[in-house]
Amino acid sequence: MSKVRVSISVSLDGYVAGPNQSQEEPLGDGGERLHDWAVELKAWRELAGMEGGEVNASSAVMEEEHTNVGAEIMGRGKFGPPSRGAWGDDPWRGWWGEDPPFRKPVFVLTHHAREPLTLSDTTFTFVTDGIHSALVRAREAAGDEDVFIGGGAKAINQYLAAGLVDELELHVVPLLLGGGERLFDEVGPGVKLELLRVVEAPGVTHLKYRVVR
Amino acid sequence: MSKVRVSISVSLDGYVAGPNQSQEEPLGDGGERLHDWAVELKAWRELAGMEGGEVNASSAVMEEEHTNVGAEIMGRGKFGPPSRGAWGDDPWRGWWGEDPPFRKPVFVLTHHAREPLTLSDTTFTFVTDGIHSALVRAREAAGDEDVFIGGGAKAINQYLAAGLVDELELHVVPLLLGGGERLFDEVGPGVKLELLRVVEAPGVTHLKYRVVR
Repeated sequence: MSKVRVSISVSLDGYVAGPNQSQEEPLGDGGERLHDWAVELKAWRELAGMEGGEVNASSAVMEEEHTNVGAEIMGRGKFGPPSRGAWGDDPWRGWWGEDPPFRKPVFVLTHHAREPLTLSDTTFTFVTDGIHSALVRAREAAGDEDVFIGGGAKAINQYLAAGLVDELELHVVPLLLGGGERLFDEVGPGVKLELLRVVEAPGVTHLKYRVVR
Repeated sequence: MSKVRVSISVSLDGYVAGPNQSQEEPLGDGGERLHDWAVELKAWRELAGMEGGEVNASSAVMEEEHTNVGAEIMGRGKFGPPSRGAWGDDPWRGWWGEDPPFRKPVFVLTHHAREPLTLSDTTFTFVTDGIHSALVRAREAAGDEDVFIGGGAKAINQYLAAGLVDELELHVVPLLLGGGERLFDEVGPGVKLELLRVVEAPGVTHLKYRVVR
């Protein structure tokens, strides 16, 4: 059966974004540094339509992360804009321009109804009736492939707390943000995990866990 | 020059002890499970004067942790009792009985003055004039050897925030405690680290960092 997977960069003090997120600083103060290890990679640059880049121990981790994923669920926090609220007359179309790198169905958790938005190979569907409904729809769209919970912290935490995540990969970055969006907030106690593997790479340690039911 | 080292077990959600610490549950709800990996080891059992135990990938980590340490600094939270406050007429003598496993000078951070307490090979000295003073005294006592900051979270966080820690080893345990004593609270931003090594072992992943000045 297909899996529900989470994979996210996190600071050593547990934040997936810094404080003061804004349209200019989507990942908050210092948060962009959480992704330094990724944006240098050839595998990442290819997804973003760019040339060049490095190949190192993180490359296989990133390739695995993007393989066999049939649909993504993201929170309003990841889709944006940071002001949230009603969509308005000229609604926000995401951070990623006219050719978003997802190229699969994306389900956006929101309190505000909206027609689906198709940009190139990616269709964003806006789900207003909760995480379980979004997962049903994402599973249907994914078929035999996995469903990826793409963030932010609140979306991931909700799925973890509900016991709906099968695998969790943390890209642990050796910096302290001191505040921001905290992973695992209001998730424990009662969630057990089992380490599947560790990969040590430049600027990051990849810890992959299975969530034990 | 001798180093200031920290080494502590931490849940995946960043706690070094669970909520509701008490005399019966010194590590709070679920917190004792943070040390399951350690208490099974022959290396730990020897320090506690017990026989038997396992030898696995954690054994060398624990041996390294205890090698070349000339003095330990601990917070009142680690020394106890959980009620804290004034020492009283029949003062608390620590959690460890008449033969504590430290066998070196231990400096206890406290707001309440007290004469030194010697139990077998361990002398506890109570320091009321702050973390810098405690470190000066611990360095003197340690000579060429390292100073170990033994916890709890508050003591470690204070030394990290003050930029006084050279090496930090996290024993990351795959469970979520959901509350308790949080490592890194009020430490970041502005602290950078560099991974020195990873050791994958049964029930724990050891991540050792150098703190970059």
